Amino acid sequence: MTQIPLTEPADARPSESTTRGATVWLTGLPSAGKTTLARAVGVRLERAGRRVEVLDGDDLRGHLTSDLGFTREDRDTNVSRVGYVARLLARNGVVVLVPVIAPYAEARDRVRAEHEADGADFVQIHVATSLDVCAERDVKGLYAKQRAGELHGLTGVDDPYEIPERPDLRLDTAGRSVDESAAHVLALLRERGVA
Amino acid sequence: MTQIPLTEPADARPSESTTRGATVWLTGLPSAGKTTLARAVGVRLERAGRRVEVLDGDDLRGHLTSDLGFTREDRDTNVSRVGYVARLLARNGVVVLVPVIAPYAEARDRVRAEHEADGADFVQIHVATSLDVCAERDVKGLYAKQRAGELHGLTGVDDPYEIPERPDLRLDTAGRSVDESAAHVLALLRERGVA
Repeated sequence: MTQIPLTEPADARPSESTTRGATVWLTGLPSAGKTTLARAVGVRLERAGRRVEVLDGDDLRGHLTSDLGFTREDRDTNVSRVGYVARLLARNGVVVLVPVIAPYAEARDRVRAEHEADGADFVQIHVATSLDVCAERDVKGLYAKQRAGELHGLTGVDDPYEIPERPDLRLDTAGRSVDESAAHVLALLRERGVA
Repeated sequence: MTQIPLTEPADARPSESTTRGATVWLTGLPSAGKTTLARAVGVRLERAGRRVEVLDGDDLRGHLTSDLGFTREDRDTNVSRVGYVARLLARNGVVVLVPVIAPYAEARDRVRAEHEADGADFVQIHVATSLDVCAERDVKGLYAKQRAGELHGLTGVDDPYEIPERPDLRLDTAGRSVDESAAHVLALLRERGVA
């Protein structure tokens, strides 16, 4: 994959080229509220005229990552592939919201490093909703299945989740409206010159 | 993966949203000149101020498709993944040049159908350089290896290449300069409102 080098001064190019993209990765436990928050932020950015993509982990498993399971290696490959696609979009002016668990710090850090090497903005948000609240919400019934012994390797329960040490934003969605949570993310993006 | 629906009329959005992207797939035998042509077209489009990505098959094997081999199934999965990424970029205003062999018609047709369903432009170019000329060029030494018995399953020799029946453009690069070939592609893209 090759990005053709610019051959003209920046000011000779139309406005599309000066619009700043970014990858905004929302990491956290299942049912933490990652996808809901990503979509809420996405809608608000689109209203403001930005190009937006939401790369949802579950949806991508139907396309880009259908061969992957839930071993550590497969989870890391998943993060790597999604990170690669996000980076391509981000460097083309798109704000890419990625609500994907990404349980391992090393894989998350690698995606950030690849963005930085490419001059693409990367923002990490830890959706830090507590395990108790996530298990109570249980949007997809995964926690119940795990308790019933029908599912093994649930992130945060019987599979690792490495809490991000220095996220750009740590946000507990419990007791906050979606609007309020989205406003926190948008404030950060404005600060970074993305929104 | 979700694209947030537009919630504002198109004219309230900045110019970036009105720039038309497209996937331009260059299919053909190894050493047909696909990558050279893709890069030449890409440079010219960038000079004209367009956002451009070249998704080269060999480069992508280092990222998105490193698990894939050269069986029919793996070749089709390769085309499907690359097609998916191209579509995401195209619908965000990027001109995506894809110099990837894509030997099977069914997989190529599926990518086109997915683009059409998504409202993204898709242009297929058959780089129709003859097998004799390709084997003579042999940029990567693949034809020599096949002849020496060191490689099996070379597209067009001992692995299928299904010639596109109705490409948007069929172009033999033999006896044409790169400039001249690129001009043919650019003329087509202008006709389609992409360049």
